[in-house]
Amino acid sequence: MQRLMEKNPKKMVSQIFAGNRLALARLITKIENRDPLLPEYIKHLYSKTGQAQIWGITGPPGAGKSTIVDRMVSRLRARNLKVAVVAVDPSSPFSGGAILGDRIRMQQHATDEGVFIRSLGTRGRHGGLSHATKEVVWALDAAKFDVILVETVGVGQTELEILKLAQTIVVVLVPESGDAIQVMKAGLMEIADVFAVNKCDRPESDQLVRELINMVSLNEKDHPEKGAWKNVICKTEAVRDKGMDDLLAAIESHQSHLKNTKLKEEKVRISVTDELNNIMTEKVGLELSNYLKSKAGKTLVQNLMKKKIDPYSATRKIFKIFSSS
Amino acid sequence: MQRLMEKNPKKMVSQIFAGNRLALARLITKIENRDPLLPEYIKHLYSKTGQAQIWGITGPPGAGKSTIVDRMVSRLRARNLKVAVVAVDPSSPFSGGAILGDRIRMQQHATDEGVFIRSLGTRGRHGGLSHATKEVVWALDAAKFDVILVETVGVGQTELEILKLAQTIVVVLVPESGDAIQVMKAGLMEIADVFAVNKCDRPESDQLVRELINMVSLNEKDHPEKGAWKNVICKTEAVRDKGMDDLLAAIESHQSHLKNTKLKEEKVRISVTDELNNIMTEKVGLELSNYLKSKAGKTLVQNLMKKKIDPYSATRKIFKIFSSS
Repeated sequence: MQRLMEKNPKKMVSQIFAGNRLALARLITKIENRDPLLPEYIKHLYSKTGQAQIWGITGPPGAGKSTIVDRMVSRLRARNLKVAVVAVDPSSPFSGGAILGDRIRMQQHATDEGVFIRSLGTRGRHGGLSHATKEVVWALDAAKFDVILVETVGVGQTELEILKLAQTIVVVLVPESGDAIQVMKAGLMEIADVFAVNKCDRPESDQLVRELINMVSLNEKDHPEKGAWKNVICKTEAVRDKGMDDLLAAIESHQSHLKNTKLKEEKVRISVTDELNNIMTEKVGLELSNYLKSKAGKTLVQNLMKKKIDPYSATRKIFKIFSSS
Repeated sequence: MQRLMEKNPKKMVSQIFAGNRLALARLITKIENRDPLLPEYIKHLYSKTGQAQIWGITGPPGAGKSTIVDRMVSRLRARNLKVAVVAVDPSSPFSGGAILGDRIRMQQHATDEGVFIRSLGTRGRHGGLSHATKEVVWALDAAKFDVILVETVGVGQTELEILKLAQTIVVVLVPESGDAIQVMKAGLMEIADVFAVNKCDRPESDQLVRELINMVSLNEKDHPEKGAWKNVICKTEAVRDKGMDDLLAAIESHQSHLKNTKLKEEKVRISVTDELNNIMTEKVGLELSNYLKSKAGKTLVQNLMKKKIDPYSATRKIFKIFSSS
């Protein structure tokens, strides 16, 4: 019976619309495993997406992202908003809520039906994580979560890629995570809408705040894609629940800015075209991988290894085969 | 005249074969800029690749990678081997030898015709850097460099991706880069063939060496793709030129291991199929980007934004258009 349900995407998606958490969790697992029926599931739920606010939270390890996320969840719950947290760790092969931090958090919100927490890891696959994360966010969006918090661990290229799906991005820093120059070098100045200087009880934090203020005013004109938005810098001390109201106010102010300036629409446009690229790349990769298992494919690889053909000419051949099949 | 030469890929490639450094530098720039004629250039030079040894050097910032690379270059030059260094910094928008470290190094080897040094950055593009790096390595290989050192800054997913092209990978660590657990978490245990514990004059380095030894013996059986290779751990102090002979011996021992076990062939197979994927992904991305500029493409994006169609169905439409054109 259970199996039958899973083979009926339309039915399972309607269960998700109705708030069935088990169905939602199952779909997320299917997204992670790149289930062949995924296009069907997405087709049925896509029209219900676009309602949620999507916030991204990033920053170096140990900056206090999880604590900040927890504080936000509590505040949003106090307003009776449904909140989902997606914790993405590109360096971790674990997923499905198996990581320690998750279990600790689960305890706090375990009995709360209005909170959904899920971890995503690479499961050994390189790349494609931002694609999967986006589809997970769609599922949560269609499941009527009001706010979806996407938390990424680390500050590499992969993390920046993942955060492209967020509408508002909070970069969490602590004095020891380095100075503002490093923030800029890591590409965080470009993506940040709000900075949270956490653990602001530490004396060095004022220095970091000053540097960020300078950097923000220097960079303002370089990012027309942000509209006239000027990055907000908030001082927080999440463990003591300090500065969290200001941080939330800054995020909400950015959300209003997005709406008022039509930037939100522009972000959707970028996200949608990006997704087309992701899907096409995935499909081509799958077809190629199947082709290379065939006799003709194996011969082609042999010829490449013997330098009898070059990769570009080989690719042209493969495309011809694909389009004629 | 110059322009004519550049429009004749076959001629330019033959100049590269003949050791013309200017032609080589120009081709690398074309690779960086994704010149539309690139398939032609690659086609003409591909048959001459496969001769060079390709070594990868990675590790956290400040571990002393560049000093180690310099010491290696000097030793290889003493044996009269031609050496190329490709320094890849995924976080840097600079390229073409513009970064400071490069200019310093350039001074040392500026008058040496047997050394070629080049930096590659992202130039604002995300992704595709590992693809471009591979083609740069082909160009250097075809230009008859005996050893190509690919140095990547940082230890993220992008860097690991780039290093897939290397035959032997050296991971440079210093005590302050953390303990062996972090090495494992960052995926370095999987890719490393040789560890260099640099700045080994520091007292904490013995602890790191011990941890690595434990970790290596624990991990041995998990990586059948390495054959019976057991990661070698070398203590170095590159600034004082200490331990460099041992490090080179370890690398050479791994190179022999690759040949004796046919692992080298397997690495070529992986590299070649990976490259087919890269080229196809790039081509599909380009075609998509062109299509989205057309009237039909714009309407499709509008419909996606209005949720009138879902991305998977949209992709199927686009593929149909591509294969019928």
